[in-house]
Amino acid sequence: MKAIIQQDTTDPTSLAWTDTDDPTPRPGEALVRIHAAGVNRGDVLQAAGHYPPPPGTSDIIGLEAAGTIEAFGPPVESSHESGSTSAGEKSGTQPVKQWSVGDQCGMLLAGGGYAERVAVPVTQLFPVPRGWSLTDTAGVIEVAATVWSNLGMVADMQKDQTVLIHGGSGGIGTFAIQLAHAMGLTVATTAGNADNLELCRSLGADILINYRDDDFVVVMKEHGGADIILDIMGAKYLDSNVKALGEKGHLVIIGMQGGVKGELNIGRLLSKRGSITATNVRGRSLDDKAAVVADTIKHVWPLLEDGTISAQVTKTLPIADAAEAHRLLKSREVTGKIVLTVE
Amino acid sequence: MKAIIQQDTTDPTSLAWTDTDDPTPRPGEALVRIHAAGVNRGDVLQAAGHYPPPPGTSDIIGLEAAGTIEAFGPPVESSHESGSTSAGEKSGTQPVKQWSVGDQCGMLLAGGGYAERVAVPVTQLFPVPRGWSLTDTAGVIEVAATVWSNLGMVADMQKDQTVLIHGGSGGIGTFAIQLAHAMGLTVATTAGNADNLELCRSLGADILINYRDDDFVVVMKEHGGADIILDIMGAKYLDSNVKALGEKGHLVIIGMQGGVKGELNIGRLLSKRGSITATNVRGRSLDDKAAVVADTIKHVWPLLEDGTISAQVTKTLPIADAAEAHRLLKSREVTGKIVLTVE
Repeated sequence: MKAIIQQDTTDPTSLAWTDTDDPTPRPGEALVRIHAAGVNRGDVLQAAGHYPPPPGTSDIIGLEAAGTIEAFGPPVESSHESGSTSAGEKSGTQPVKQWSVGDQCGMLLAGGGYAERVAVPVTQLFPVPRGWSLTDTAGVIEVAATVWSNLGMVADMQKDQTVLIHGGSGGIGTFAIQLAHAMGLTVATTAGNADNLELCRSLGADILINYRDDDFVVVMKEHGGADIILDIMGAKYLDSNVKALGEKGHLVIIGMQGGVKGELNIGRLLSKRGSITATNVRGRSLDDKAAVVADTIKHVWPLLEDGTISAQVTKTLPIADAAEAHRLLKSREVTGKIVLTVE
Repeated sequence: MKAIIQQDTTDPTSLAWTDTDDPTPRPGEALVRIHAAGVNRGDVLQAAGHYPPPPGTSDIIGLEAAGTIEAFGPPVESSHESGSTSAGEKSGTQPVKQWSVGDQCGMLLAGGGYAERVAVPVTQLFPVPRGWSLTDTAGVIEVAATVWSNLGMVADMQKDQTVLIHGGSGGIGTFAIQLAHAMGLTVATTAGNADNLELCRSLGADILINYRDDDFVVVMKEHGGADIILDIMGAKYLDSNVKALGEKGHLVIIGMQGGVKGELNIGRLLSKRGSITATNVRGRSLDDKAAVVADTIKHVWPLLEDGTISAQVTKTLPIADAAEAHRLLKSREVTGKIVLTVE
């Protein structure tokens, strides 16, 4: 098959569409022919050497894709005499879909999406939402799993809570605003200019904060503090985020665009009985990922199918132009999601 | 009535047994005649001006006590047409005990324990464990509620997990070791000398760490990292605690004996998908406290009654000697719990 192979590990732009070996599906995995692959910030970091794939997974870039199942790996040897159970069944959240050769699907990947084929655990397959194209599906998997796993599963968001979403006009932000609004939360969000804030408002944000003009701590205190903060800035916002939390508030950090190490005022956190979780999807165990996938399908897919949350793909490029896609993402010339198409 | 009244707010030792007004129970409160009051580190901090009582609560020192119900406040006006529900019922964890005048009880207090009488929400009353004296009961309320609310409710401890308990020979530590051991966890603990570690071992600790000789980070890594850390040191241990966490580990900070502000390595926390919660019992809402009390009675009281967890009171003093009790606690001359007795 062909895949995007980085020719020079010191040059993140040296991404060439190159012949390489086909992947071999292991027990419990499907072999999927890829039609479209989403482009993520993690891909750009990986090309720059900053986000290595977890041990035992593909070196090829690409965290999400959509395609058609071509084959399955050998049967899973069951450790139970009474037959097999899947992680999806164990999680108790979703009946296990029976997948067949020829089915179309979306995929949550630890790597390998920038290719003609990928081997992926069947517990990480998503149905294509009714009415959605494979291109749009490839662009929604990672953000849906990330946002649901954090707002839904880690922070256990509830109707009438207040959530602060940083970077509301970004890929994570636009999805999180729509999801939290649909779940009945009061949504506060930060962005850097009026156009981006207007986008956030149109997606359902209630409290709009221009971080260049306003202090989000002051604004959130006026609204009683945040029950949940979804943060992508890390160290730079740590102290302010703790200040902006309300009673029993939960700061969920999923990005560190503002640095890795910051001062934590434990006394302030304790006075609110607050929590901080830092997490991502990629490094989780297979069981954890299976639980995230099943829960995301259960809670988010109906909102994709009924139009509550819309597709955000604004740019498609042939996969051979992966380097150009990375340049566009870094330059911020494109707002919305970029997807690479195969064939 | 008489109560311990601090004569000079600048002198933490000026604690005199003095005439003062009786408390008046509000709707939903009981008026309790006190027989014994536990002495806690928070009491010493409050006398020194560092741990003020929450707004609207008694200025009198004392976070736990045991005694006999003398009266009740006026009936609670229900906000529901269909009759009243208590916070205990709402929490769904414990049928509400019907209390009567003359019943003996333990009490979780926001303040007011160093006195002849106290007014306390009935949702913060505990039955006296079968076979326990009022003195021993007065000395177990605060530690039981603190340890259960954190290990049981915040961290959701599960059989076969590994918990690291800092300060294993202290009041919190000795209780936490017994409770976690009884729940089937592997218990690691730190202490400063061989005698204290031997005490921890006798209470059920599996992994003994002398913090003067050994690095608890190294030891915990050898054991796969901690699923839960119960910490009383705060800033001083923050970085090491994050290092000692395992995958999806949860650091629960309930004391700041090592300082308030520390550097948090968010990248390290994220690589483990870890969480930090800082919390206490005293500042919680009435509903939260009711839930803690109900859950503590449900999960911990059976272990007190069957002897799995034993009373730790080693010293009793007449309540007029409160200043001497504080001196003993600060001097660490007494290991185990100090309780003040009334009459």
